[in-house]
Amino acid sequence: MTSTLRIIPLGGLGEIGKNMTVLEYGRDLIVVDCGVMFPDSRLPGIDLVLPQFDYLVKHQSRLRGIVLTHGHMDHIGGLPYLLRQIKAPLYGTALTLGLVKRQLKEAGVLAQAQFHTVTSTSAFKLGAFKISPFQVAHSIPDSVGLVIDTPVGAVVHTGDYKLDETPAGGQTTDLARLRRLTPRGVLALLGDSTNADRPGRTPTEQLVADELDRLFTEAPAGRIIIATFASLLARLQAILDLAVKHGRKVALTGRSLEENVALARELGYLKVPGDLIVDAGARVPDKKLLILSTGSQGEPSSALNRMAEGEHRQVQVKRGDTIIVSGGTIPGNEEDVGRMLNRLFERGANVIYGKLANVHVSGHGSRDELLAMLEAARPKFLIPVHGETRHLHLHARLAQGAGLPAERVFILKNGAAWTTDGQRAWEAEPVAASDVLVDGHLVGEVGALVVRDRERLSQDGFIVALIPVNGRNRLAGEPQLISRGFVADGSHALLQAARQEIMRRYPRGQGVASDSIRETLQEFFFRHTRSRPVVLPSLVRV
Amino acid sequence: MTSTLRIIPLGGLGEIGKNMTVLEYGRDLIVVDCGVMFPDSRLPGIDLVLPQFDYLVKHQSRLRGIVLTHGHMDHIGGLPYLLRQIKAPLYGTALTLGLVKRQLKEAGVLAQAQFHTVTSTSAFKLGAFKISPFQVAHSIPDSVGLVIDTPVGAVVHTGDYKLDETPAGGQTTDLARLRRLTPRGVLALLGDSTNADRPGRTPTEQLVADELDRLFTEAPAGRIIIATFASLLARLQAILDLAVKHGRKVALTGRSLEENVALARELGYLKVPGDLIVDAGARVPDKKLLILSTGSQGEPSSALNRMAEGEHRQVQVKRGDTIIVSGGTIPGNEEDVGRMLNRLFERGANVIYGKLANVHVSGHGSRDELLAMLEAARPKFLIPVHGETRHLHLHARLAQGAGLPAERVFILKNGAAWTTDGQRAWEAEPVAASDVLVDGHLVGEVGALVVRDRERLSQDGFIVALIPVNGRNRLAGEPQLISRGFVADGSHALLQAARQEIMRRYPRGQGVASDSIRETLQEFFFRHTRSRPVVLPSLVRV
Repeated sequence: MTSTLRIIPLGGLGEIGKNMTVLEYGRDLIVVDCGVMFPDSRLPGIDLVLPQFDYLVKHQSRLRGIVLTHGHMDHIGGLPYLLRQIKAPLYGTALTLGLVKRQLKEAGVLAQAQFHTVTSTSAFKLGAFKISPFQVAHSIPDSVGLVIDTPVGAVVHTGDYKLDETPAGGQTTDLARLRRLTPRGVLALLGDSTNADRPGRTPTEQLVADELDRLFTEAPAGRIIIATFASLLARLQAILDLAVKHGRKVALTGRSLEENVALARELGYLKVPGDLIVDAGARVPDKKLLILSTGSQGEPSSALNRMAEGEHRQVQVKRGDTIIVSGGTIPGNEEDVGRMLNRLFERGANVIYGKLANVHVSGHGSRDELLAMLEAARPKFLIPVHGETRHLHLHARLAQGAGLPAERVFILKNGAAWTTDGQRAWEAEPVAASDVLVDGHLVGEVGALVVRDRERLSQDGFIVALIPVNGRNRLAGEPQLISRGFVADGSHALLQAARQEIMRRYPRGQGVASDSIRETLQEFFFRHTRSRPVVLPSLVRV
Repeated sequence: MTSTLRIIPLGGLGEIGKNMTVLEYGRDLIVVDCGVMFPDSRLPGIDLVLPQFDYLVKHQSRLRGIVLTHGHMDHIGGLPYLLRQIKAPLYGTALTLGLVKRQLKEAGVLAQAQFHTVTSTSAFKLGAFKISPFQVAHSIPDSVGLVIDTPVGAVVHTGDYKLDETPAGGQTTDLARLRRLTPRGVLALLGDSTNADRPGRTPTEQLVADELDRLFTEAPAGRIIIATFASLLARLQAILDLAVKHGRKVALTGRSLEENVALARELGYLKVPGDLIVDAGARVPDKKLLILSTGSQGEPSSALNRMAEGEHRQVQVKRGDTIIVSGGTIPGNEEDVGRMLNRLFERGANVIYGKLANVHVSGHGSRDELLAMLEAARPKFLIPVHGETRHLHLHARLAQGAGLPAERVFILKNGAAWTTDGQRAWEAEPVAASDVLVDGHLVGEVGALVVRDRERLSQDGFIVALIPVNGRNRLAGEPQLISRGFVADGSHALLQAARQEIMRRYPRGQGVASDSIRETLQEFFFRHTRSRPVVLPSLVRV
């Protein structure tokens, strides 16, 4: 309750995803974004990762509002989970709130939120905070950064942005407004670091439109199938325009795509001639048809992957089809994408993807753009956000190279309580900000130990040893071994030999203990196979 | 035994790795390469994948020799396993055979092979085959392609190659010799397809040397640590030369690197001034030290990853270190590499990697180079090899675009028996050529079913249900559930509820069967968690 500002990232630092930042001054608390993260391969079986909401739940009475920068899942996807626990006023642009509402409705928590639509020219107060969004270019329309005036100075949160001069949809990053909004300078810049390892500038979205135009022109008389992210609404507009230009009807396949197009049309973010869209099963000559699809990441259940596997109900890929995968491969998805591409080629299609043509550009600014943002904001302090550790460090070094003293650059971890009185800045006691794992209906119940067990099980499988014992824990029969994921056959000679090893070591009538049985079996299997299956002895009283 | 040539790829088609090709004419059989493949994430717990050797073992009496194109593991790594089963004469250049011998010695099968050293100007006969190697530029010295004269025409196997005019070590691809060796044209070209999706030409290795030179010049007064592949011997020479130029001593860390450098020095493939190499623990001022390390793929046990984790015995990464990761990230390793980079930045090092600078180039030719090879060989038939399905198709389409009729291009699968009489070509009955999985000491014993079990276990874990029954299979006590990888705690309320569900469904004294218990539990857990753990009921007689 002192006159300091605290900025607490609950997610998005040291990782790409689950972006969420708390700002506090006195009794007032606001939140910027509430995203999810898609798990990497170290989290087998996990569906989603959420920020830990505990701090916010505890201080919900002080929450003045959650301000959303744009409608991507890594910025809004956590809301259905948060709003099971608290009520909250939400602030965002029309498209962002449209996407949020659909999510909250599906999750049955719509009533927990109040919605306040803002624009990139609004300004509104939330307790001690005055928030002025400014337009940024990103891969979804209606994206904003935020100037947040606080009693100790202005904070700028860039959201996700690039400095594209010719973006799809025409929405550039409004650095002029950012400057006008910060006449007394910027106390702290929270800057997107996603592409801090890419030299130069990120190519313009116009490049993709031009390349697609060329590919449309060169395509043979067959169908064109384009897979892209359903959320790349600006690119979708460019593709729809190209369809009109090249005289092709458009069929949509993939639920998220159909929903996003419907919503964006309804809200006026997509201009689509009335008769352009046709049903995927409609009778349109191949050379007059464009199929827009999800699946640029090779996700198993996506429309394009179902086509690749020959399991799509309406679209069978065939010789003469030109398939364009217009989405950068997210690290970790390379193998899935590669397998899908292989299948599509096997079906005779001509497939065009990232390595072959410029069919995707990033929505995040590269190093020269980060520098331009630093120059526009001239911050006293820089807090790199949105990035893995290497991106945060590279963003920090970039700023230092441009003249910002090292002690004014803070590389924080999730949960850090960065505190400033407007002059100095320091880190106070951190708050809890771990990963919360979602596995089916289980939220937070699957923890690190379970995940470690899954990793071990995936490497060498397991063996449950049922050891019959009498009342005095003495061996009273033949042990039984149950195994999965270890060797080819449950009745394998190896398991037979392991049973005999137990009988030899612990003759009938001798006392046994679980730990000793486990050690015996672990040692036995490692000696024979160099593998370390999970061994679980269970003494069964008979 | 007819006058046809058969070419049977046992590995390397539809995959990158385990390259191995059989050529047969009459009673004579030769093999080109015998590699391994490193498993992707779909093969959890698997160490290596081998080609299936059965066909070769069956026909070993007809084997005239195994000819090796170069010393990379995907071309020689299968030999220790094959030579457990058969004896064989091996033909390769000096460095290649040096690397092979080390492997065979370690595996204790050295006596199974006879060694025949060849050069890129040799020609030798193996039964009906006359083999003339020709020099190719690749990322390991002493690489060759092969012209194989057969009674029905010449076959060219490119091995791995690029058309680098300024390769490290100066070994260019000798297309002139290829032309001279094939005065009557080429019947079939087996061409490397690895980079068939990369437009233009692969950049020269000289680019890497120039970039490293620049980075050496710009490095602050601290140590330089370079991680690269131990097999990139030509690049190692360039790095050692730079160390001399910039007045730095070189310490080696990582077993494969130390071994390869020793071997290459011994065989004269690396020129190293006598006092250049120092021990990693030697007292050399930081600004005078270069540490060469393994670990460009973020492999957990590699030297660089141990440094990143603070577990390296001799090297502690610190502020002021410049770390250069000079190796392209192999698809599937992105996450491991990313995590390692993050840790290195956290330790204060300045880390330079692929996105930031040109510190790696591929050793395989891109599309323009594939075209140049097609022009040099003017083959009647093309069989794209070394590539996943998409690469083979793109190579095929490239050749068709350059004028080769589609019916003369064969996209084969492993095991295909491509047959030609010199005029026509067709596919005969295929031979068995599956993946053989190596898991610790187990070779071929872990099959697809076990791997599928591991995948399932990694997603949702397992539950073993011990159901006490009496002699008539009637429930005779409380069921016990053993679980790992499912929910956080074995005594979780959910498991408790599941036990009660069983007791409710099957009251004491009622008959139970494993299948019915499994269904009950699967349904129960899915209803409550949307997860599908592996459920294994076990009736225990009490």
